[in-house]
Amino acid sequence: MIEIAKYLPRLLQHDVICSLEGKSLIINDRRALPFEEKGVVVSNYQEASQAIKDMVTQGGGPLEVALQTFRLLAREKDVNYSDFSQAYVSLANARSTNTTMARTLKELLDKIELAFQTDTFTDEVVDRLVKDELDKFDAAYLKIGTQLEEFINDGDGILTTCFAEHSFFIALALAKAHHKAFKLYIPETRPYLQGAHLTAPAAAEMGYETALITDGMPAHFMGAGRINKYITASDLALLDGTIVNKVGTLENAICAKYYNIPYYATSLGADINKKNRQDIVVEYRDPNWVKEIQGVKITSSSVGALYPCFDVIDSSLVTKIITPEGPLCIKAQ
Amino acid sequence: MIEIAKYLPRLLQHDVICSLEGKSLIINDRRALPFEEKGVVVSNYQEASQAIKDMVTQGGGPLEVALQTFRLLAREKDVNYSDFSQAYVSLANARSTNTTMARTLKELLDKIELAFQTDTFTDEVVDRLVKDELDKFDAAYLKIGTQLEEFINDGDGILTTCFAEHSFFIALALAKAHHKAFKLYIPETRPYLQGAHLTAPAAAEMGYETALITDGMPAHFMGAGRINKYITASDLALLDGTIVNKVGTLENAICAKYYNIPYYATSLGADINKKNRQDIVVEYRDPNWVKEIQGVKITSSSVGALYPCFDVIDSSLVTKIITPEGPLCIKAQ
Repeated sequence: MIEIAKYLPRLLQHDVICSLEGKSLIINDRRALPFEEKGVVVSNYQEASQAIKDMVTQGGGPLEVALQTFRLLAREKDVNYSDFSQAYVSLANARSTNTTMARTLKELLDKIELAFQTDTFTDEVVDRLVKDELDKFDAAYLKIGTQLEEFINDGDGILTTCFAEHSFFIALALAKAHHKAFKLYIPETRPYLQGAHLTAPAAAEMGYETALITDGMPAHFMGAGRINKYITASDLALLDGTIVNKVGTLENAICAKYYNIPYYATSLGADINKKNRQDIVVEYRDPNWVKEIQGVKITSSSVGALYPCFDVIDSSLVTKIITPEGPLCIKAQ
Repeated sequence: MIEIAKYLPRLLQHDVICSLEGKSLIINDRRALPFEEKGVVVSNYQEASQAIKDMVTQGGGPLEVALQTFRLLAREKDVNYSDFSQAYVSLANARSTNTTMARTLKELLDKIELAFQTDTFTDEVVDRLVKDELDKFDAAYLKIGTQLEEFINDGDGILTTCFAEHSFFIALALAKAHHKAFKLYIPETRPYLQGAHLTAPAAAEMGYETALITDGMPAHFMGAGRINKYITASDLALLDGTIVNKVGTLENAICAKYYNIPYYATSLGADINKKNRQDIVVEYRDPNWVKEIQGVKITSSSVGALYPCFDVIDSSLVTKIITPEGPLCIKAQ
């Protein structure tokens, strides 16, 4: 039994991310954080898929919601394999860039299919399968966090981007437990402000010294010698060492390289279906996200805007990609 | 007679920046742009200084306000040299980083002193002296803009930062007149949002193809081959080639260097009183500017923040510093 809850801020606790209560799944609405704690209640996979599409949760959240949605579905009367199969398609399509969620759900679906075939299907079986999956992820996060912590030194100034979630917070908690002092520099991460909304409040909650900065300031603090590590999660890692992460990561990775600051990215594992950056399609989202902040207009309507969601970062800019099994071995393609 | 008005967006027109009407000076309130056009009315140098302190205007605005405030003062009954001397101190101190304003006002003050000594002082004398100063600046902006335009090529994707004002807009207007097509990428420039509030609407007003982006996106578009020039003004240029500009400039300059993209900075001239970066003190401002956007909170109150206002950019990152007299000759210190 892996217990990582003690290393994590409230918003990353399993039962906060989403919790099954009777015939409903309550999903913590991260869009309202840090100003308001509220839940979105869904009662079937269609509503759960819509909640994922609506960005009620993000990062590792959709995976947990999808898993719990399978538990919810398992409780329905006369449920059959076809229902699970349809739920899988619906949930996987709700966030098509989240290949970890799709892969995990597919594995779960195959096990459920086997349970139906062997006539051993019950909702308790699904409960256990989901519990196993969550434990597996917790173990993976702990393995990554434990390795990452070794790269944190006493006195570090650590830059991150967006919301690097479990592995990052586990590493920080372990570093603190090992009496390493550090200061976090957290860019607000426009346009969606995950740095300001999620990472900085979570870091403050954990008692870490935290400075919120704007997305244009990291190089300033690198040049001033105050930032000496760069750590992010990654939305995707390829075997050739290319990573994909929130837009803004590339800018910081280049500046880190310029100042000889190591950049550590975490990943649950490489996506072996993508060979190199040519296989990566960067999603463009609604440009109104750039023209507004928390729904407040910041420019005139005559102005055009662009919102590429992700950066593709060349392996030459990344010091190490840390996976549960150790640093990713980069293969020339 | 230099006529640069036709090259400039509305907010850079002399009589829009500030205008003397009777016993009042009306200052265009840039804090309200682009949502509302309104003026702050001041009736003496103390109020004008306060308006400058309150950031009613910025960039080249404080200089014009200070000059017009001298005209306003000249209209007062029984005004004497001591009044101008006090006004000079008050206005120069209102934005201590603006050394151009202080130097220009001092020159004007010396001429006014001479007028009092030779008993030739009248308000018309001050009107003419101010007009001469404004003409001198217009001529300087035109010289910079004309040189800068030569570096713009048909098909360019041009990144800027903050609000690069006259020289930048003159260069763009000349490039357009020479049938060069270009696209502007304008970072919003947090925390004060000058890119979103001033530059992008002004560029759209002039009919230029404009994309507002967040401060973390420039490298994304450089990597995608869409940005191939970086152009900014500078708050300060030193003879060793160091420049000072809005925080965020360093991050972009480093990324431009990484992608072999030339970076052109404009300057009215080097500050010969500062030898190198050790002589530059970077101002830190109220961190609440980072924790809020247009007065709307973006993080929880438990979170700390930092707001360094300027970046210091090493000469190795700047391709050319363009002054009215030509590219700044960089001297090793």
